[in-house]
Amino acid sequence: MKRYEKFAEDIAELIRSGVLGPGQRVPSVRFASQTYGVSPSTVFQAYYLLERRGLIRAKPRSGYFVNTHAPRPFSEPQVSRQSDGSTVVDVSDLVFSVLDSIKDPNTVPFGSAFPSPMLFPLQRLARSLATASRDMDPRMVVTDMSPGNPQLRRQIALRYMVGGLMLPMEELLITNGALEALNLCLQAVTEPGDLVAIEAPAFYACLQVLERLKLNAVEIPVHPREGIDLDVLAHNLERLPIKAVWCMTSFQNPIGATTPEAKKQALVELLREHQVPLIEDDVYAELYFGQHASKPAKAFDTEGLVMHCGSFAKSLAPGYRVGWVAAGRYAQKVERLKLMTSLCPSMPAQAAIADYLQHGGYDRHLRRLRDALEDQQSAMLAAIARYFPAQTRVSKPAGGYFLWLELPEQMDSLTLFQMALAQGISIAPGPIFSATRRFGNCIRLNYGSPWDESCEKAMETLGKIVRSLC
Amino acid sequence: MKRYEKFAEDIAELIRSGVLGPGQRVPSVRFASQTYGVSPSTVFQAYYLLERRGLIRAKPRSGYFVNTHAPRPFSEPQVSRQSDGSTVVDVSDLVFSVLDSIKDPNTVPFGSAFPSPMLFPLQRLARSLATASRDMDPRMVVTDMSPGNPQLRRQIALRYMVGGLMLPMEELLITNGALEALNLCLQAVTEPGDLVAIEAPAFYACLQVLERLKLNAVEIPVHPREGIDLDVLAHNLERLPIKAVWCMTSFQNPIGATTPEAKKQALVELLREHQVPLIEDDVYAELYFGQHASKPAKAFDTEGLVMHCGSFAKSLAPGYRVGWVAAGRYAQKVERLKLMTSLCPSMPAQAAIADYLQHGGYDRHLRRLRDALEDQQSAMLAAIARYFPAQTRVSKPAGGYFLWLELPEQMDSLTLFQMALAQGISIAPGPIFSATRRFGNCIRLNYGSPWDESCEKAMETLGKIVRSLC
Repeated sequence: MKRYEKFAEDIAELIRSGVLGPGQRVPSVRFASQTYGVSPSTVFQAYYLLERRGLIRAKPRSGYFVNTHAPRPFSEPQVSRQSDGSTVVDVSDLVFSVLDSIKDPNTVPFGSAFPSPMLFPLQRLARSLATASRDMDPRMVVTDMSPGNPQLRRQIALRYMVGGLMLPMEELLITNGALEALNLCLQAVTEPGDLVAIEAPAFYACLQVLERLKLNAVEIPVHPREGIDLDVLAHNLERLPIKAVWCMTSFQNPIGATTPEAKKQALVELLREHQVPLIEDDVYAELYFGQHASKPAKAFDTEGLVMHCGSFAKSLAPGYRVGWVAAGRYAQKVERLKLMTSLCPSMPAQAAIADYLQHGGYDRHLRRLRDALEDQQSAMLAAIARYFPAQTRVSKPAGGYFLWLELPEQMDSLTLFQMALAQGISIAPGPIFSATRRFGNCIRLNYGSPWDESCEKAMETLGKIVRSLC
Repeated sequence: MKRYEKFAEDIAELIRSGVLGPGQRVPSVRFASQTYGVSPSTVFQAYYLLERRGLIRAKPRSGYFVNTHAPRPFSEPQVSRQSDGSTVVDVSDLVFSVLDSIKDPNTVPFGSAFPSPMLFPLQRLARSLATASRDMDPRMVVTDMSPGNPQLRRQIALRYMVGGLMLPMEELLITNGALEALNLCLQAVTEPGDLVAIEAPAFYACLQVLERLKLNAVEIPVHPREGIDLDVLAHNLERLPIKAVWCMTSFQNPIGATTPEAKKQALVELLREHQVPLIEDDVYAELYFGQHASKPAKAFDTEGLVMHCGSFAKSLAPGYRVGWVAAGRYAQKVERLKLMTSLCPSMPAQAAIADYLQHGGYDRHLRRLRDALEDQQSAMLAAIARYFPAQTRVSKPAGGYFLWLELPEQMDSLTLFQMALAQGISIAPGPIFSATRRFGNCIRLNYGSPWDESCEKAMETLGKIVRSLC
């Protein structure tokens, strides 16, 4: 990171944390230069950057100010009520009908599960693919069946190490994306009919996996900032034979919550007491907006109870389908399930990503990607402020690319979904995120596409439909 | 195919079918040239080819003769007895301990599940990979999630069409190798606890899939040349609630049987009467030694009851993990299961194989591969004749790369497996091919590696161990 980028990031952090409020003056160039020991031109460069990103703006002859155009402080979505007991999961038809209908590449993709492919270094990856496949040892295609490409596993372990988490290479298994990893983990620790604690709202694929494996769900409320409700979870662990807990600890899909590190530690401790495994879906980990990633729950695991799943699908290359799992004490069981299910992941993709991680500039790409996503979040929040009813509640996640909107209570998001689709706009309606089909007045919006006129226009249209339905 | 290759193939067919027996004179060059209307030099070229492949040899001043060095006519392995009723499948530990121990690349790979990677055009594939990834539309990584790369699906459908089987593009789903396809098919038509008819002996991965899905097996004997026993199958369909039949109709792994087309038709008809789906594992289809591929059972399916699975893993690129399924009336269900399990297959591998099929010379490669495998089979059969006890029974499949050996009854193939491994030779012991751990005196040998001194030496060593154990 260049000096001015570092300084800009410091100022941005002050704005994010509220130390510098909307309309407040940011330090003058002279003051900042003296106080922080950087050159005036560095400060200028930093302020240009912040201006471009919409965080501050220049007033002629007065200096720089925190943007008052910044989104008004929305209320947070409410924490869901606790649902009663366990539920047979049966939402696939609904989920598929929604997913099928948003496939059309001409719709505005607010309902998409991925960031725009334009944000990924696909040309650079193609070079890695060419290099890696040229250099691939032919014997590898037979002998390296599982647990995956050793160079790739080494690179992943290295990234964790830099982040303060020591993952032994032997524990790391490469999978066909995180979805396969999550499937294998859940299957390793459950039998059909077992009970699994999941989040409410939950990522719909989690519901589908439960349904596929014929598992029952008990839903635990998720706070839009603080993550899963530990008291409710503890209560349920006491009274129900829960066999596993599945949760997304960072930038939870759909609500955006990141469980604070201390709470992650408490979660791991709680599960240790009950000897219940945690399946940690951490696929958005790299998409944080601040200075540092939050440590995963896995970092606090001393007994191998956390099965930690990651992926390059959201941060680098969706179509390559390369994910991984560090499954702790279940590692061998998961590896064997993988062998029985699909033998091993595709080798060219693994080799290409291993090469890219070594030579392609992943961290530089990630910084650009995070900046882009943060900008796009601001733009979408601003558009919500402009076009949506005042009672709208919105999450403001510190990473990822989803906003969770709670609309006025009478709103039916499935109707909204149909009406928006008729206008060429996809959204993800709330009920696909719940085993009990709740969140009928909520929607998830994807801000993963570079903001342009069509996005702005689509938000205006959406806002009109919402108002017409209230 | 060149003229002399075609003519050589005709003669080879006469030898294979026994019209020309060992020691018999093949037509003189003059006679052949006149009778078949080809030039003498074409006949010479053909005979050189057949000589190189060990099928005939020249006797000075007498002409060409069918090789008497050719393997002596072994007895066929016996058809397994019918086992009683259904079995809970529980062989994974045994299979894994065998598979783990043969991973060492320094062992002679007679126990391997793949042909030698040296037989595949990996450099040419790498070029396709480079081309395809350069030309890949970035949006594809998001929009083309499932059912797979359209170019690839078109190429696969085309190959079937040429072989006389019309598969609608919409029915074709690309998977992470055939193993995933088979898993999805079985899951689409069963619930845990259901009964599935499988072959005896069966491919061990089939047993593992049943075990993973908590299904019970009823074993149907397989004749070493004629395939699955239809009478036994019919009897079991009458009396048991069989939910699916899984079988390999061509070059069955491990026994090598290819079910004749008329019998395939009868099989499909039988299942139609009972309205039971057939899961057809046809991964060796391209590896036939004769002039033409045998049509799959799918070709006789009029009601969409056959779920036909194929793969490039055995004929082109093991590590790419690209397979497919045409699941008939279950196509949508299988596609949805795929979406819930691993979303979609890795895109670079799909694009590369699509490019290779169009521009790489797949048919030329296949002809070379088939010739190599047929030569290697002859070499291994000859080695068995030289080194193994006379009571040894051996299959002589018309394709693929496995021989199934039935050794004297007192032989324990698991002991043989351990002793051979200690000498640096891997084999696949019989019991891993049975839900009821039968075939204790059988082994499967892989002749997929170019025959060399180390193969010959290993066969000699194996023969000694077998004799010492009898």
